[in-house]
Amino acid sequence: MGEFEIIANIRRFAETVPVSGVVRLGGGDDCCLLAPRPGEELAASTDTVVEGVHFRLDYFSLYQVGAKAMAAALSDLAAVAASPAAALAAVAMPRHKGAQEAEELALGLIETGRKYGCPLVGGDLTSGDGPLVVNVTVFGTLPAGRAVLRSGAAAGDEVWVTGRPGDAAAVLACLEAELGAAKVRLPEPAPHLRKKFLLPTPRLKEALILAGEGPPSAMIDISDGLAADLGHLLDSSQAGARLLSQSFPKSGFAASVAEALGLGAEHFFLHGGEDYELCLTAAPGALDSAVERLKKNRCATLHRIGYITAETGKMVLERPDGSLEQVRKKGYDHFDKSPA
Amino acid sequence: MGEFEIIANIRRFAETVPVSGVVRLGGGDDCCLLAPRPGEELAASTDTVVEGVHFRLDYFSLYQVGAKAMAAALSDLAAVAASPAAALAAVAMPRHKGAQEAEELALGLIETGRKYGCPLVGGDLTSGDGPLVVNVTVFGTLPAGRAVLRSGAAAGDEVWVTGRPGDAAAVLACLEAELGAAKVRLPEPAPHLRKKFLLPTPRLKEALILAGEGPPSAMIDISDGLAADLGHLLDSSQAGARLLSQSFPKSGFAASVAEALGLGAEHFFLHGGEDYELCLTAAPGALDSAVERLKKNRCATLHRIGYITAETGKMVLERPDGSLEQVRKKGYDHFDKSPA
Repeated sequence: MGEFEIIANIRRFAETVPVSGVVRLGGGDDCCLLAPRPGEELAASTDTVVEGVHFRLDYFSLYQVGAKAMAAALSDLAAVAASPAAALAAVAMPRHKGAQEAEELALGLIETGRKYGCPLVGGDLTSGDGPLVVNVTVFGTLPAGRAVLRSGAAAGDEVWVTGRPGDAAAVLACLEAELGAAKVRLPEPAPHLRKKFLLPTPRLKEALILAGEGPPSAMIDISDGLAADLGHLLDSSQAGARLLSQSFPKSGFAASVAEALGLGAEHFFLHGGEDYELCLTAAPGALDSAVERLKKNRCATLHRIGYITAETGKMVLERPDGSLEQVRKKGYDHFDKSPA
Repeated sequence: MGEFEIIANIRRFAETVPVSGVVRLGGGDDCCLLAPRPGEELAASTDTVVEGVHFRLDYFSLYQVGAKAMAAALSDLAAVAASPAAALAAVAMPRHKGAQEAEELALGLIETGRKYGCPLVGGDLTSGDGPLVVNVTVFGTLPAGRAVLRSGAAAGDEVWVTGRPGDAAAVLACLEAELGAAKVRLPEPAPHLRKKFLLPTPRLKEALILAGEGPPSAMIDISDGLAADLGHLLDSSQAGARLLSQSFPKSGFAASVAEALGLGAEHFFLHGGEDYELCLTAAPGALDSAVERLKKNRCATLHRIGYITAETGKMVLERPDGSLEQVRKKGYDHFDKSPA
């Protein structure tokens, strides 16, 4: 089976994308055609994941690689409070993989897109000598001028996160330890925890409720770790933050993995990444009705973890005893060759 | 210098993307924000190029890789007759490359985008153990309902191409021969020919004139080779084609390379690829004024090379002596393991 046949098969999986809403023309031509309604804007984002950098096929099935790549891309739409509309995918398969593997990956992309109302409307399939590379571009719509940007945080705003950032990275540490000759015994992550890393939930529902009831003054999704991503938000907003350690959502699992590895209890929460939870800011009280609404809709829980300061670029952790320490803002940096 | 610093530098190269036209928000947030004017649609396409599959760094500088990736992506906008509006890029750099190389590549992307009115408004930068992978997603605008699709060709329409498809692939053959231990001596391509492969011109100007004065009944850009891409157009249009060999635009260079390699004189024209010329169809006479207008504007020359038939899926080559042969519709297929 050749490339063109595989593409034909994948198109069959995707079915004909209905010409409705934003999508005027789906797959099968040189471009897809999109048209938001009057008064709407289109949000677009592109993300690449590379085998050996972002994932290993030792613990990800090809279906899961596709599913997670789509989920991670959708998370960027959540971060600006856009509703998913359509996606494009570009896949470079290792030469030794065959047609069935390409289809499995495509199915992960397509089914996850469909689950969140984001049909795959086009793509590009190549193969080569390198690792598996998956790029996903997503489009979402939102009322013109209503995007929640990174740049709106102001001193006095509160800092919130959805869910419990850190679990995903703690799971990853366990999976990596299983593969390597781990010197320490790490816990076996339960299936619901594994899923937080292998197939995270983009916080689309939460973002729309927050934008509708709030809106937050600024928002970002946590892909590189809370400290790194909140750091980007602070850079864009020209502000600082003070985080209160006793208000961090507790995770016994992440704490036990951190302890086994000789890391601080907050390590995974601050520096973990891969959860695709949201970090957001809002004036005190501005999210009261959003918090209620999130509860009613069985959404991820919102936790208030600190506040925004006027000390541009400074991120400080306050301990229960009142002691303060600088938070290293770095997440995983693909190009930094200096020691961490 | 780390990833975040590199991104900051690249952003400086790109300058602040003006909030004008379609772009409501450029780089620096989780998504870019786009809004076509009322009555317009947005065309979007994504393409990935992989080192070792689509190019080699032996004969491409990193600047040229970026420039060509952008040009190839823009060619998909030309294929539906859209005007470029904005681009996103996602780059996976080999781990051993440094910051300067990432910037050189980014500059190729940014300057080529700018040349064609397509500012880079966002992206994603990672590194890994694999080859260099560059993904470009482009957005263009066009009047709603006016896209020139692949599916509109009808029996009796004429088949046209811009420029002289085949030269790019002939140049590639020469560059590859220089690298390997070539058994035959191939000509040294002149700089203007080299450029056809290394830095092809997306036929955006031509596409807009054709759409304005014609429009063509169907159009596609030639990336995999005329036979393969016209094949896609015929599949979409449920039609066939007869190509007249004596009407093919002559290229002494491509013919001499083909001869040296023991290939037919039409080999590169039919199966070459990488030129990013356009292949289009139109009812007889429908392009008369477009042909004039293209001449006046010093655009690529249009050549009529055959006509559309009702024999769905059949592509036939007619020789000057009236003899007929089937044209193999295959281009380069990344997944086909059967002998060519």
